[in-house]
Amino acid sequence: VSIEETASNIKDMEIRGAGKIARCAVIALKEHALNIDADTPELYLKALGEGSAELKNTRPTAVSLSNALSHVMHKARGETIDEIKDNLVKAVDDFVETSIGAIERIATIGSHRIADGDVILTHCNSTAAIRTIVKAHEDGKQIRVYATETRPRHQGYITARALAEKGVPVMLIVDAAVRFFMQKVDIVIIGADTVASNGVVINKIGTSQVALAASEARVPVLVCAEGYKFSRETAMGRIVEIEERNPSEIVDITEFEGLDVEVKNPVFDQTPPRYIDSIVTELGVISPFAAYEVIRKFEEESKDV
Amino acid sequence: VSIEETASNIKDMEIRGAGKIARCAVIALKEHALNIDADTPELYLKALGEGSAELKNTRPTAVSLSNALSHVMHKARGETIDEIKDNLVKAVDDFVETSIGAIERIATIGSHRIADGDVILTHCNSTAAIRTIVKAHEDGKQIRVYATETRPRHQGYITARALAEKGVPVMLIVDAAVRFFMQKVDIVIIGADTVASNGVVINKIGTSQVALAASEARVPVLVCAEGYKFSRETAMGRIVEIEERNPSEIVDITEFEGLDVEVKNPVFDQTPPRYIDSIVTELGVISPFAAYEVIRKFEEESKDV
Amino acid sequence: VSIEETASNIKDMEIRGAGKIARCAVIALKEHALNIDADTPELYLKALGEGSAELKNTRPTAVSLSNALSHVMHKARGETIDEIKDNLVKAVDDFVETSIGAIERIATIGSHRIADGDVILTHCNSTAAIRTIVKAHEDGKQIRVYATETRPRHQGYITARALAEKGVPVMLIVDAAVRFFMQKVDIVIIGADTVASNGVVINKIGTSQVALAASEARVPVLVCAEGYKFSRETAMGRIVEIEERNPSEIVDITEFEGLDVEVKNPVFDQTPPRYIDSIVTELGVISPFAAYEVIRKFEEESKDV
Amino acid sequence: VSIEETASNIKDMEIRGAGKIARCAVIALKEHALNIDADTPELYLKALGEGSAELKNTRPTAVSLSNALSHVMHKARGETIDEIKDNLVKAVDDFVETSIGAIERIATIGSHRIADGDVILTHCNSTAAIRTIVKAHEDGKQIRVYATETRPRHQGYITARALAEKGVPVMLIVDAAVRFFMQKVDIVIIGADTVASNGVVINKIGTSQVALAASEARVPVLVCAEGYKFSRETAMGRIVEIEERNPSEIVDITEFEGLDVEVKNPVFDQTPPRYIDSIVTELGVISPFAAYEVIRKFEEESKDV
Amino acid sequence: VSIEETASNIKDMEIRGAGKIARCAVIALKEHALNIDADTPELYLKALGEGSAELKNTRPTAVSLSNALSHVMHKARGETIDEIKDNLVKAVDDFVETSIGAIERIATIGSHRIADGDVILTHCNSTAAIRTIVKAHEDGKQIRVYATETRPRHQGYITARALAEKGVPVMLIVDAAVRFFMQKVDIVIIGADTVASNGVVINKIGTSQVALAASEARVPVLVCAEGYKFSRETAMGRIVEIEERNPSEIVDITEFEGLDVEVKNPVFDQTPPRYIDSIVTELGVISPFAAYEVIRKFEEESKDV
Amino acid sequence: VSIEETASNIKDMEIRGAGKIARCAVIALKEHALNIDADTPELYLKALGEGSAELKNTRPTAVSLSNALSHVMHKARGETIDEIKDNLVKAVDDFVETSIGAIERIATIGSHRIADGDVILTHCNSTAAIRTIVKAHEDGKQIRVYATETRPRHQGYITARALAEKGVPVMLIVDAAVRFFMQKVDIVIIGADTVASNGVVINKIGTSQVALAASEARVPVLVCAEGYKFSRETAMGRIVEIEERNPSEIVDITEFEGLDVEVKNPVFDQTPPRYIDSIVTELGVISPFAAYEVIRKFEEESKDV
Repeated sequence: VSIEETASNIKDMEIRGAGKIARCAVIALKEHALNIDADTPELYLKALGEGSAELKNTRPTAVSLSNALSHVMHKARGETIDEIKDNLVKAVDDFVETSIGAIERIATIGSHRIADGDVILTHCNSTAAIRTIVKAHEDGKQIRVYATETRPRHQGYITARALAEKGVPVMLIVDAAVRFFMQKVDIVIIGADTVASNGVVINKIGTSQVALAASEARVPVLVCAEGYKFSRETAMGRIVEIEERNPSEIVDITEFEGLDVEVKNPVFDQTPPRYIDSIVTELGVISPFAAYEVIRKFEEESKDV
Repeated sequence: VSIEETASNIKDMEIRGAGKIARCAVIALKEHALNIDADTPELYLKALGEGSAELKNTRPTAVSLSNALSHVMHKARGETIDEIKDNLVKAVDDFVETSIGAIERIATIGSHRIADGDVILTHCNSTAAIRTIVKAHEDGKQIRVYATETRPRHQGYITARALAEKGVPVMLIVDAAVRFFMQKVDIVIIGADTVASNGVVINKIGTSQVALAASEARVPVLVCAEGYKFSRETAMGRIVEIEERNPSEIVDITEFEGLDVEVKNPVFDQTPPRYIDSIVTELGVISPFAAYEVIRKFEEESKDV
Repeated sequence: VSIEETASNIKDMEIRGAGKIARCAVIALKEHALNIDADTPELYLKALGEGSAELKNTRPTAVSLSNALSHVMHKARGETIDEIKDNLVKAVDDFVETSIGAIERIATIGSHRIADGDVILTHCNSTAAIRTIVKAHEDGKQIRVYATETRPRHQGYITARALAEKGVPVMLIVDAAVRFFMQKVDIVIIGADTVASNGVVINKIGTSQVALAASEARVPVLVCAEGYKFSRETAMGRIVEIEERNPSEIVDITEFEGLDVEVKNPVFDQTPPRYIDSIVTELGVISPFAAYEVIRKFEEESKDV
Repeated sequence: VSIEETASNIKDMEIRGAGKIARCAVIALKEHALNIDADTPELYLKALGEGSAELKNTRPTAVSLSNALSHVMHKARGETIDEIKDNLVKAVDDFVETSIGAIERIATIGSHRIADGDVILTHCNSTAAIRTIVKAHEDGKQIRVYATETRPRHQGYITARALAEKGVPVMLIVDAAVRFFMQKVDIVIIGADTVASNGVVINKIGTSQVALAASEARVPVLVCAEGYKFSRETAMGRIVEIEERNPSEIVDITEFEGLDVEVKNPVFDQTPPRYIDSIVTELGVISPFAAYEVIRKFEEESKDV
Repeated sequence: VSIEETASNIKDMEIRGAGKIARCAVIALKEHALNIDADTPELYLKALGEGSAELKNTRPTAVSLSNALSHVMHKARGETIDEIKDNLVKAVDDFVETSIGAIERIATIGSHRIADGDVILTHCNSTAAIRTIVKAHEDGKQIRVYATETRPRHQGYITARALAEKGVPVMLIVDAAVRFFMQKVDIVIIGADTVASNGVVINKIGTSQVALAASEARVPVLVCAEGYKFSRETAMGRIVEIEERNPSEIVDITEFEGLDVEVKNPVFDQTPPRYIDSIVTELGVISPFAAYEVIRKFEEESKDV
Repeated sequence: VSIEETASNIKDMEIRGAGKIARCAVIALKEHALNIDADTPELYLKALGEGSAELKNTRPTAVSLSNALSHVMHKARGETIDEIKDNLVKAVDDFVETSIGAIERIATIGSHRIADGDVILTHCNSTAAIRTIVKAHEDGKQIRVYATETRPRHQGYITARALAEKGVPVMLIVDAAVRFFMQKVDIVIIGADTVASNGVVINKIGTSQVALAASEARVPVLVCAEGYKFSRETAMGRIVEIEERNPSEIVDITEFEGLDVEVKNPVFDQTPPRYIDSIVTELGVISPFAAYEVIRKFEEESKDV
């Protein structure tokens, strides 16, 4: 796939989920790297950088997309074009492998928190959360899942299908019914787009009110988040910009022609750490309040390399 | 309109909103009363009762529907068919007038609670809430309203249009975005399907999480509810049965053919009184915890008559 | 049974539970009334009053004991000894019947709040609460009950037996395990010794922390309380005095001979109304915040008689 | 004293405290009534009304001022000037006596809630609250009081002196130190300017944060409020207007000449009923959530007269 | 003492308290090590491992028991039996010394948090908590302690005696009375069996409701926990298994013969970190939310050795 | 300036604000160092130490004062007087530069958290908080600030002037009005005197109730604190001693001559970390619960030097 196609698929949300976006983006960059026709290493790197930038601009909130591209671009060094190319290809392959390995590790760790007989609630469509739930099912635990439809894009239907195909029974509900069903829920398991240095979790719009309703009913909230979703930039004060997408995702705006009706479509919201029981990363289970330490640990590790 | 048609329109939610349902139902009963062909007062009353029962069965949660029909049937007394008919017609006309008068009175009282410059959030489509908001606008207050789309039936679109047509600017949002926008909201104004004797408000699914998010942000919640929505039966322990409607309102279930995916579609939820600042009734502004007193007061009044 | 015996049985908690104490006390007074050997109505009344006072002094916190005795003594009027005697006997019989009738009515109303499949938690040994639970069982609902042992007197063992004998499965736990099991509980159902005019419920020590743990987990708390447990005196500012019983009920104090170890044995505590969902009385289901109204209503009724 | 003088003293807060303002105002009106020189009853009533209006306009938030004047003006009826005069004088005398009687009754009831050894916190300068505290002291209870200074007018100094002169030890603190000392406090006792129909208590600025800090530390808040402070108008939706007084009460504004510094000086705030344990009125102890019932009860009584 | 005897004493709770169990277990292992009759180092190590396993299996929840045995077994290395024996003996002696040293250090640090005049509440029987309280007493602070009896095994009696023998006045209460007395308490001081990586503290059943009641009344909760109680395994997702002990510890089950009464006897519960003010370790005072960092720090240190 | 003068200015609060105090103190020590007349290095160091001690004793709560003096005294080493002098001078100059650099870095990081149009509330007079607010204004954001007057010393007037002089519009309010205005506030920005190892922030009296009111209304609280305000000593159990200043700062105590009125004037209070969204340090944005890690990080760094 070409950069343009991948960029467009990410923008249109054909490719969804913070982890999947990151992986698809670096793979597209690799494809691009293999096909650049350049005379000098400088020109080669320039073309590579342009490809990376195009991919990066598709979704402003996606910390993992930006982290992944920066990471592989950082490795794309060398004296010759071939050397640069080889390093980038290796970095991309490593990233994809590590990223998928992280999900498996999170699923193994996180599934321990699911007990036999548990009723789970999930929101939107997180690969890490789904994998964690399926792992518990594969371990022989009898579980059932409430999946929210997740307006406006109905990612919940994808989640419902993904779980049911693996044999996990699903009950699909509208987003407004979360509090109604919360008293029957044993644990909430969700993903994250970004984890800020003060423990705030940025995720699909609606996540914060799911977590609020869980907290009101003493239901623990487990966030499954790979390490590259922890945002160094937030530690430097950056506010995670909340992407506003096209109103037409919600409703055909011409229905309100001539009327003072504006449609607001923010895609993410911020969940305060006090509503989150634990974050499961590939490093282990932590309190969201320890997010800054995870960021520091990754910084140290990246220095070592 | 015939009973059958009205019953079907209520069932299909062509006619929506607790107050409007009650009014349409008694009007259909009146129409029916004028057309019953019966030989004796007994047979006349029987036919009337059957019509009332058919209407009553359309929506199990709707206390106001049942209250309204019981009220007018109670007045349908007399020695002759004509006497019964006249009494019923008068009772229906009185009920409709009183019911609409109650809304106006609620709007007048409730609009005092809206200040110039206020940002309001409303959920679903309540005649009393909309009228209260429009009244504040008519009084010259500059206000703006967040309206939730209210899945699955999108009653929020009707609300948006109703407000915008009166000149109130509206921002339409998905149900999942309520907590995201709550910090910009000054007051939440909603209707009620039923008020229970312990102060619990039964209203459209999602209301309780709107109220929870408001409470978390110290935003007052105002419920606009006519007196006939206060349920005597709940004082006798009756749990308000939550209607479950057809899954197809949410999603085409064939999408999940062969998979263990069940769609749950409860229509109402229960909001605890501690999340509600005040209920505005035609009697005045009360705490939801004083619901039992309103019920007693109406009982006394109905005894007097 | 003689007054002395009944008084001693109440003091020793052979007779337990606010309602049962009230009924046994008036029955003992009736027995006493039938056996007083007096020359004049004045002397008869004096002897009667002494009996009543002796019974009243057994448990200082018990509002219902005092209310019951005052009520029947108030009726013990007449020109002759026989007339007084007859009036008292009738008053006692009426009280006992009404009191038992109230429990049945509470059970009927309250059992509507129990759903099929519910897991219930109860504390101590309340006739009204047990009857409510058994009623739900008799109505064919599959329920299970966590019963706390209720230190120091282990009234929970009596509750466990009473429920299990009626066919309700019971899980017995220590008082300290309430929060551990609360997430598996659907509803807490308890009795009351006294309801104060501001909605505070005085009941067996530990009730307030059961209610606190229920509130933390969004589990509703239902209090079953006959009307005569609502305390007019608290409306006049009286603080319900909390009885302190003998340390030996908890531990053989000689174990700590020579050491500065004091044993504290308060019998009741106060549960704030915000932790209580509803109070079920023979009048219906109310919010605890409406307690003052119940008190006024009973006042009006007693004036009418 | 003349109307002008009293009006000016109320405006300047020489006369402070909702109850005292009401009493002084009706006494000034009586003085005025005795000195009006008018030819006809109509002219007499007109002059009386003008006096009443002048007094009423001094403090917009003061419900009790307005209630008191309306009450005595309502009684000022008659065929002749003398008859009107006599009725007004009697109404004023009755009001003053009842008002002072109410305070005594509140003090008696409320003081039962103070235990020997209690540490009390009070804010601003409420006659009913002070009288309640002093009553407990007179009953032999060892108590101590934290009094806030109550910026900007330092009414706390008056409170401190009033209590200390009666022998109650006082610790004076700045308003900002309330939460710091709250853990040593057993009960908060305050007055009220107005009680709204939904239970909200309007009182001196800072009251709501005192109540919030008390609630955070499980310290009960007792509000002492005479019945005429319950506002019928709020039941009709009226928002209690919060008076903004002159910035110069806080700081000499010329200090900030030429700078964009505005001084805001609201005099009252609203305390939500959930932070209030009980309101003590001359009728007894109630939950603030029962405010609407008190309003109704007073309405009934005023109808009877 | 033999392994069998120690294992049996731990199982029967003759030996109680997480720290004491760990110390007694390694001492028993040392005794065992001194007496093993083996021909080869391999056989010696095998016998040692069997002893360790027998001890480890006595209490499933006890992280510190398992940590201690793993630690000393890890040191039991060498070419000859004598070398292995010497290393093990040294490791045991070191562990016991360090463990007791940790308690002293915790007591010194923690006692700074106790002020003169403080009323303390403790639950169960923690050596570190008792030592901290006694240290404050030895430093001349006037303190008093509420000790819960701690059903079913009444460890509170041991605590009461231990404190009183050192001169600290104790008030013994039932577990159900904690919330009743909480408003008179200045600080709660307790031990821990295990601290999980997300800050959850696993301790004797009832601890979590003590902490909940403290939090409700703004009373700080101090947990005294040696570093080896922080569980590395929980960071890997392991849920701390809650041991269920014999029902006969609570009640003679034959009392309920023939009835459907089950006795549940979980020994520990989980206290969420938001109810805990600080954890005192030998490293210093930390927030429970920093538990993961303590685990990492100990990991680093154990790597260094 | 001499040590005496500086010490006196700090004591009298002519020099205020934790950072400014630290800087002025080390500068005074440097001045002192340049003027000591001593025969031997030992005597020189002794005189230096006496100067440092005099400065340290001025404000007991001020961790940063003590940290700063310890830091520069630690560097004051050498074989000869000149060497010692040079090292001290260099250490002082470095400290001042670093300290001011820290504030600029905090302002840059923290200002990202302020959005265009925000209404900010600040309490007391913090250089770091003011600089952060002004930075946002310099970046072109339209902001307005509520500044509390901050009794008893009215530091809020200085804050108001400092902000208004830079062009930031200010609304000055009494401390008691914080909760009244909180619903119009978007973010609270304050400084800190000390940050304890469990995340508690010690700051000007009143800070904790500002933070409580913010938390009640879901308004984030941002604390601006340089790294040297994190207290190593609290990790060792030290309770930050709360300075009590002269009653005459509040009121002329002779007003209450002969009366039992005591004036309490604590200068700081403790804000629990759960009411604080983030702490901005020169290292970045962290959760207050990560305070222990900041302390460790600084410890490591100071070891490296």
